[in-house]
Amino acid sequence: MLRGLTRAGLGKIESNEQFIELAAKYGFQAVDIDAVGLVETHTVAGARELLEKNGLVVGSIGLPVEWRSTEEVFREGLPKLAQAAEAAAALGCTSCCTYVLPSTDLGAAHFMALATRRLRTCAQILGAYGIRLGLEFVGPHHLRTRWQNPFIWTIDETLDWIDAIGERNVGLLFDSYHWYTNGGTVADIEKLRVDQIVHVHINDAPDVPVEEVLDNGRVYPGEGVIDLAGFLQGLQRIGYTGAVAQEILTAEAPTDSPESLAERSKAGFDKVYAAAGL
Amino acid sequence: MLRGLTRAGLGKIESNEQFIELAAKYGFQAVDIDAVGLVETHTVAGARELLEKNGLVVGSIGLPVEWRSTEEVFREGLPKLAQAAEAAAALGCTSCCTYVLPSTDLGAAHFMALATRRLRTCAQILGAYGIRLGLEFVGPHHLRTRWQNPFIWTIDETLDWIDAIGERNVGLLFDSYHWYTNGGTVADIEKLRVDQIVHVHINDAPDVPVEEVLDNGRVYPGEGVIDLAGFLQGLQRIGYTGAVAQEILTAEAPTDSPESLAERSKAGFDKVYAAAGL
Amino acid sequence: MLRGLTRAGLGKIESNEQFIELAAKYGFQAVDIDAVGLVETHTVAGARELLEKNGLVVGSIGLPVEWRSTEEVFREGLPKLAQAAEAAAALGCTSCCTYVLPSTDLGAAHFMALATRRLRTCAQILGAYGIRLGLEFVGPHHLRTRWQNPFIWTIDETLDWIDAIGERNVGLLFDSYHWYTNGGTVADIEKLRVDQIVHVHINDAPDVPVEEVLDNGRVYPGEGVIDLAGFLQGLQRIGYTGAVAQEILTAEAPTDSPESLAERSKAGFDKVYAAAGL
Amino acid sequence: MLRGLTRAGLGKIESNEQFIELAAKYGFQAVDIDAVGLVETHTVAGARELLEKNGLVVGSIGLPVEWRSTEEVFREGLPKLAQAAEAAAALGCTSCCTYVLPSTDLGAAHFMALATRRLRTCAQILGAYGIRLGLEFVGPHHLRTRWQNPFIWTIDETLDWIDAIGERNVGLLFDSYHWYTNGGTVADIEKLRVDQIVHVHINDAPDVPVEEVLDNGRVYPGEGVIDLAGFLQGLQRIGYTGAVAQEILTAEAPTDSPESLAERSKAGFDKVYAAAGL
Repeated sequence: MLRGLTRAGLGKIESNEQFIELAAKYGFQAVDIDAVGLVETHTVAGARELLEKNGLVVGSIGLPVEWRSTEEVFREGLPKLAQAAEAAAALGCTSCCTYVLPSTDLGAAHFMALATRRLRTCAQILGAYGIRLGLEFVGPHHLRTRWQNPFIWTIDETLDWIDAIGERNVGLLFDSYHWYTNGGTVADIEKLRVDQIVHVHINDAPDVPVEEVLDNGRVYPGEGVIDLAGFLQGLQRIGYTGAVAQEILTAEAPTDSPESLAERSKAGFDKVYAAAGL
Repeated sequence: MLRGLTRAGLGKIESNEQFIELAAKYGFQAVDIDAVGLVETHTVAGARELLEKNGLVVGSIGLPVEWRSTEEVFREGLPKLAQAAEAAAALGCTSCCTYVLPSTDLGAAHFMALATRRLRTCAQILGAYGIRLGLEFVGPHHLRTRWQNPFIWTIDETLDWIDAIGERNVGLLFDSYHWYTNGGTVADIEKLRVDQIVHVHINDAPDVPVEEVLDNGRVYPGEGVIDLAGFLQGLQRIGYTGAVAQEILTAEAPTDSPESLAERSKAGFDKVYAAAGL
Repeated sequence: MLRGLTRAGLGKIESNEQFIELAAKYGFQAVDIDAVGLVETHTVAGARELLEKNGLVVGSIGLPVEWRSTEEVFREGLPKLAQAAEAAAALGCTSCCTYVLPSTDLGAAHFMALATRRLRTCAQILGAYGIRLGLEFVGPHHLRTRWQNPFIWTIDETLDWIDAIGERNVGLLFDSYHWYTNGGTVADIEKLRVDQIVHVHINDAPDVPVEEVLDNGRVYPGEGVIDLAGFLQGLQRIGYTGAVAQEILTAEAPTDSPESLAERSKAGFDKVYAAAGL
Repeated sequence: MLRGLTRAGLGKIESNEQFIELAAKYGFQAVDIDAVGLVETHTVAGARELLEKNGLVVGSIGLPVEWRSTEEVFREGLPKLAQAAEAAAALGCTSCCTYVLPSTDLGAAHFMALATRRLRTCAQILGAYGIRLGLEFVGPHHLRTRWQNPFIWTIDETLDWIDAIGERNVGLLFDSYHWYTNGGTVADIEKLRVDQIVHVHINDAPDVPVEEVLDNGRVYPGEGVIDLAGFLQGLQRIGYTGAVAQEILTAEAPTDSPESLAERSKAGFDKVYAAAGL
């Protein structure tokens, strides 16, 4: 499993280039990055070289389509999606992810129908480029009632939704934080087939009752109470070999330097990978 | 548009044969009937002859799959569905319908995902026999809160769901009662393409505030307050030529004889068809 | 049914604007035109106004995706498709068409599998904009052996393919020329449901044996031997109300002025519409 | 990887029970068997007990739908498919397979369209029971011209077809015999993702030029020239853990006793598993 980074948790990163260099310097193997931006700045060949030189692959790109709002807003994203998929594919990335909020102000059933169709279209476009779509279920309890109507947040609900979408290239973005806040066990991971996982996030949670864990209250791997050793072992047991990317969302931006935050991230990965025997 | 009957509203009908004869005697052209039962009693050839002799076609069959409950219950219906589709197709019927309750005790979004997948499978099986699947949105207000969570009940929501199901052979069962309780207008009908309609039900509503109309408080066409002339004209204008079947659901079974109820149904159709200029 | 024009058969048209003015001047009601180009030159509002002022709608746009070649070439078209669909939808156009050559140098079965997937993706993207995809079967006999392996060319094969693609918004581009060269009858048209037709082309054929009719040997409606009155009547009978666009492909470009060719086109339409009693 | 048997190659097996006992006696772990027949004779509980007592799982069932002929014949299989899927699921089997002949007397492109739709429907039905559909590409050269038109026979073509079918639960039945006759390499196996493989067959080929290998000229594993060690190692490397079932098709039925043929099969598996280091 590749050690991966997103920008979230690294403080004031100024550029893709800085992000890449920091990731490489601290032993990371994958970055979740804006492929289009990278290709526009460096050309495809240049971006490939930059990544290769730094020993990095692109773990995943974000879905540039807003599928949670109106039809008009959804459509606006489609040309961008084709471009993003093209750029990602050119850089060898095969994963594109989006998160699923656990409540909504729309009618839950109607929104599920709309979202099913919209994400099917996104999956089709991504599929043309050999890219899979990962859906991130979101576990923190406070978000389940943040909007008017409950939507979905469990692994099983999300897998059922993936079946409803019905495209071959859709799976889970599996985040330790959401697994934990859902009350997930290592056995829950081991019930999955590896092809059901598109991408993995790793984050830790503070030592508060699980019902009180906030989505933007994340801590660095190894600094909290989640059984990340079990998490990683479960993923390894089912054969996952892709990227495991940290995404530290916090209420206030960290004030430490990116350098020290990257170092701290490395220490966290060292700790939990060692605990998992990886 | 063919004048059609279901058994609902005809009192104690003893048999398919009695149903068919009554329908024919009172000038109806279509019956919504159990095709499997008819074929089992009469053979395909015999059932065809019986229908033809009485100048009737089969308007629609009911979906013999319970898609609203557990996976096990859903699966149990699938072999029956293939049989029902075969029998219906053998009798020239191209429509199979199911109703959609406007609330549910399940999580609304999760149930929508499950139902989307299940009805897609049903549509695929029906499609192999050239049969379309009609989804009946259900309008009465009391049912929207009858179970814990609101599901869907409007035309637009149902059309969006049909898009999410994504199969070519799925459309609406369009019932005047649900159109009325949804506050539908003739313009709403005229916005539809005819291929979006799989089957039509016609019923009338008593003169009470629309919010108080009960699902099992229906009256015979022409005996209530729904603008059935406008309803029929709207359907005609968009080119609908299929069956329009009466389905009088009442709290208590009618005590009149089937003969007199069929006569009353005919009078109702005569009245509203005349008002519509058909 | 709207009288429609493509540029094919109008000689040296210099611009979209000239095309629109000629179409309007000679009583046409629909133009098959490059929506993206029109919007880029005029803005959406300007293009709408230009069309409206000339009493024209956009009949159909061409599919800007090359689905018959490599995966790379296919992908290149996808961003263009989203843009084209957006432009077309902004102009009120709901139809996008592509032709299907009746033979191929690729393995026929393998190509069918690839093309099924590719056109499904195209249909999904178009569907997000409310646009349907029309597949034009191509009848002239010489093209059936023009490339190494026979593909498909009949109505029934194309309808079966549309079922295999499986999207709700795919149907036929029905061209009188291909209907004729396939040996089609008016009864063949009347067997269709109107929702199976996305767009219509009208062309006439010279008085040569049907096996010798060349794809680029077309003549103006009413100047040849095709039963265009029967063709139009059949379409009307099943309820078709969309555009019927002329597309005169010829071996050598016509040397007459666009003005005189448009006038000749009008005369052709006058003749066959009158013969059809339209 | 589970050692598996089909009846093909075991001579005159009299019953499912004999088949199961022989498989168990000679150390096999999986049988490809008629689940419906087993359940009808033994009940679900009895069949489960019989398998468990003998240390066997059901590797795969055959697809009871004839999708290569007319629409009528196809439909006849659908009720059987639901029953077979139900029986298989009750016995814990998650795989159902069918073979794809490399040539056809039908138009290749048209047949591909029909087969795509039909197998999608089969996959949907199987999917409702948690069962995957495996497509067996068939490699022997003589079959590529056995019927009038070439269809498909390579791994890549079959994977493209699986994409065209578009259902999540469709993959390959990967048979060493067809891999060999296609000129496949171990690298070709290692390019696959494990979720692309639904089931595996293992057979050996006589020492004749590969172009002359006959479909019904198979020999027992280890008695021929196929690199079965490489085959098994490749499968293991990508993480395949399912059944590997022998299917010895021969021109003439073997005359040895089932007992001695099962013993011989065991010897073959011992040899090639050992060579693969399993």
